[in-house]
Amino acid sequence: ANDLHHSCQWGSGIRWGNGPTDTGMQRLALSEDDKGVRDWFTQTMKDLKCKVTVDEMGNIFAVRPGRRADVPATFIGSHLDTQPTGGRYDGILGVLAGIEVIKTMNDMGLETEGGVGVVDWTNEEGARFPISMISSGVWAECIPLAHAHNLKEVPTVASLPTAASAPETMKSALQKIGYLGDVPCSYKSTPMAAHFEVHIEQGPYLVSANQRVGVVTAVQAYRWFRLNVIGRDTHTGTTAFEHRADALYAFAQMMVRAREVAASKGCLASVGIVEAKPGSVNTVPGEVSFSLDIRGPETELVIEVEKQLRADFDAIAAVEGAGIGKPCRVEWTLDFDSPAVKFHEDCIDCVQQSAEAVVADASVTDTKSLVRTIMSGAGHDSVFTSKRVPTSMIFIPCKDGLSHHPEEFSTADDCATGASVILQAVVRYDRK
Amino acid sequence: ANDLHHSCQWGSGIRWGNGPTDTGMQRLALSEDDKGVRDWFTQTMKDLKCKVTVDEMGNIFAVRPGRRADVPATFIGSHLDTQPTGGRYDGILGVLAGIEVIKTMNDMGLETEGGVGVVDWTNEEGARFPISMISSGVWAECIPLAHAHNLKEVPTVASLPTAASAPETMKSALQKIGYLGDVPCSYKSTPMAAHFEVHIEQGPYLVSANQRVGVVTAVQAYRWFRLNVIGRDTHTGTTAFEHRADALYAFAQMMVRAREVAASKGCLASVGIVEAKPGSVNTVPGEVSFSLDIRGPETELVIEVEKQLRADFDAIAAVEGAGIGKPCRVEWTLDFDSPAVKFHEDCIDCVQQSAEAVVADASVTDTKSLVRTIMSGAGHDSVFTSKRVPTSMIFIPCKDGLSHHPEEFSTADDCATGASVILQAVVRYDRK
Ligand SMILES: NC(=O)NCCC(=O)O
Ligand SMILES: NC(=O)NCCC(=O)O
Repeated sequence: ANDLHHSCQWGSGIRWGNGPTDTGMQRLALSEDDKGVRDWFTQTMKDLKCKVTVDEMGNIFAVRPGRRADVPATFIGSHLDTQPTGGRYDGILGVLAGIEVIKTMNDMGLETEGGVGVVDWTNEEGARFPISMISSGVWAECIPLAHAHNLKEVPTVASLPTAASAPETMKSALQKIGYLGDVPCSYKSTPMAAHFEVHIEQGPYLVSANQRVGVVTAVQAYRWFRLNVIGRDTHTGTTAFEHRADALYAFAQMMVRAREVAASKGCLASVGIVEAKPGSVNTVPGEVSFSLDIRGPETELVIEVEKQLRADFDAIAAVEGAGIGKPCRVEWTLDFDSPAVKFHEDCIDCVQQSAEAVVADASVTDTKSLVRTIMSGAGHDSVFTSKRVPTSMIFIPCKDGLSHHPEEFSTADDCATGASVILQAVVRYDRK
Repeated sequence: ANDLHHSCQWGSGIRWGNGPTDTGMQRLALSEDDKGVRDWFTQTMKDLKCKVTVDEMGNIFAVRPGRRADVPATFIGSHLDTQPTGGRYDGILGVLAGIEVIKTMNDMGLETEGGVGVVDWTNEEGARFPISMISSGVWAECIPLAHAHNLKEVPTVASLPTAASAPETMKSALQKIGYLGDVPCSYKSTPMAAHFEVHIEQGPYLVSANQRVGVVTAVQAYRWFRLNVIGRDTHTGTTAFEHRADALYAFAQMMVRAREVAASKGCLASVGIVEAKPGSVNTVPGEVSFSLDIRGPETELVIEVEKQLRADFDAIAAVEGAGIGKPCRVEWTLDFDSPAVKFHEDCIDCVQQSAEAVVADASVTDTKSLVRTIMSGAGHDSVFTSKRVPTSMIFIPCKDGLSHHPEEFSTADDCATGASVILQAVVRYDRK
């Protein structure tokens, strides 16, 4: 927990209390602050006698060797980047728990069959470069390297003081902070025996049920889109409603509709970014671009919501501007597609057993009721590692289920529990 | 007409055709391009033997002396600034018609009782600095000088390549281009006998009725607001709808509602600017700010719409976030208030008689049917001059009633008609 807050000196964000650690985080991927924490992470792992490599996506792998050099290491991974108004736990906890595991193993003189590694994946949040988990995606060979390298930062984030001058690509940003490594970014060059990740739940289920550990068995599906609505700029004071093709009014109706449709199918639909042009009080916006994030427990459901919204958005656009024979148009671009994921039975078993053991040590009540299986609402790098190697995750509770917010919070106890569970899970998996 | 396009070399905007003049304009107030056209205007007027003065708001007054030095000049005024995606006629036509009038008077050796002046008012559009007609407003002593000098440019416009580095105030922008004059900005220091303005209609009535001239008798009321909706940042993937205080979703409902309420009262309500923070695909926006422009034929109606929307927006905000006991809040700031205006009978008469005379010269059909009285949907500097001196305006048709758009267009014939009418109106007024 000390390390956790220590690592937050790079990019500390919005203050919400008076204590020294009562701030959020604003550490956008590949910013100067990200470089700061990366340098610290690298040095820390070297001091712990790990071998550190950096690949072409800036992923940092640190491995504590095992008895056998011929088998790949079992990895603990997560990310050190945050949202623009992020907290001190999302991602950070997972990497810090990895460091704790290596420290503990060193202290105990524990030998493992294969090595044990810790990885910091680049730009997991997708906040600066709008594809989440992009670097584990390249590692899994699910996303082409060139596509990732050419990806541009989003304009809203580019204008933040901590970010570089806009618009940077991932490759130029990697070069700028000296983290464009030369190891090919691939599961072939950096193989893993398995991947474990501990993370705050980011939802309210554990905390509201007073449960201590979530054994993550699956991750819901999601798709990210960028949409453009094209209407016609015109004067706000002299143009009757029926003579407008108001791209922002069309957007407003679309956003209202998106929630309706998603809710009707047990899914989520959210808009995080919106830009209206030209951006003048007395000009009806002729162009609006926005992000759309659709999620659901089944890939098929997400696709259904998308289909319905494509039809509904077209219908909304067709009406706005019909009076002048120039209806709005809407264009969709799919930025990212993450189908629903089921984690590996072996890894899930290791986490389940470890969670029960850790919780039993720490409590007198019925152990089983403190541990539950859970589906993740958020994507994680484990989504991509699961495509290539056995994977699962551990959730710990967080206050109000809140994340992507400066006040994101988990107790030191819960963080310690997470670290203990992942240590045991890795050791169990190594012994299998 | 030559001069009109000549003056558009500074800040030419979006191209919509192949001809040399088939572009819009992007000449934001007090930009480098605005300086370019101001220098040209000043030199042109000096060459026409006018006396040029610049006041503390950068308003440029050029006066052709009359027989009597003891009476104030009759002015022709409008503006040379444009919207970010503006056209070549809105405002520009009015100043250029003024130049034509002075040229014609010089050519004809016409003597007038009082002088005849041409004025370029600063930042009429309110696009860069979000108060329209601000500099005629200061001249009329309706807006305090300090308030105007301290006004900041809007962020969307500040990021445009033609604008200076953000955020500039009006005073710093005036200094930067050398147009912070030393004449006090007041109708007391620069008195006028009357103010006439020729402008494109910016609406579809003249063009669709095949009429040639609008005699403007009134201007509708409008109010500009900046609103802030405060909710809570949170994760888009893990936060159920009922756990959200989504400021952008609240905004979307508000915008839909605003049109409904305005339409029900024969008014307009428009959003031109919207900004959502933090602006990340997978974070529910915790803060949204937007502009709201409410207009109507009567001041009272605008106030009614505002009242209704204040209540409705509060109701929308109260629901979004109620599930977590942290509903959204909405804050209103009134940026600008322009009550409905009625122009001066004497000026209206001069315009009516001149319009009929000009149209009679040029046509064989029934003259009366080509001239109509009309209310302006847009604000103009004439709104503020009318508070201190007799004022009225002349409208000419524009294609599709379109303005604040690069394809804004009026025929050379219609522009010439406008110039002829204003010349006659000024002479008639001078002789009264
Ligand atoms: N855990 C997390 O916030 N990941 C970012 C990707 C997502 O939006 O689900
Ligand atoms: N004529 C014109 O576009 N004026 C700007 C002020 C307004 O928005 O009405």
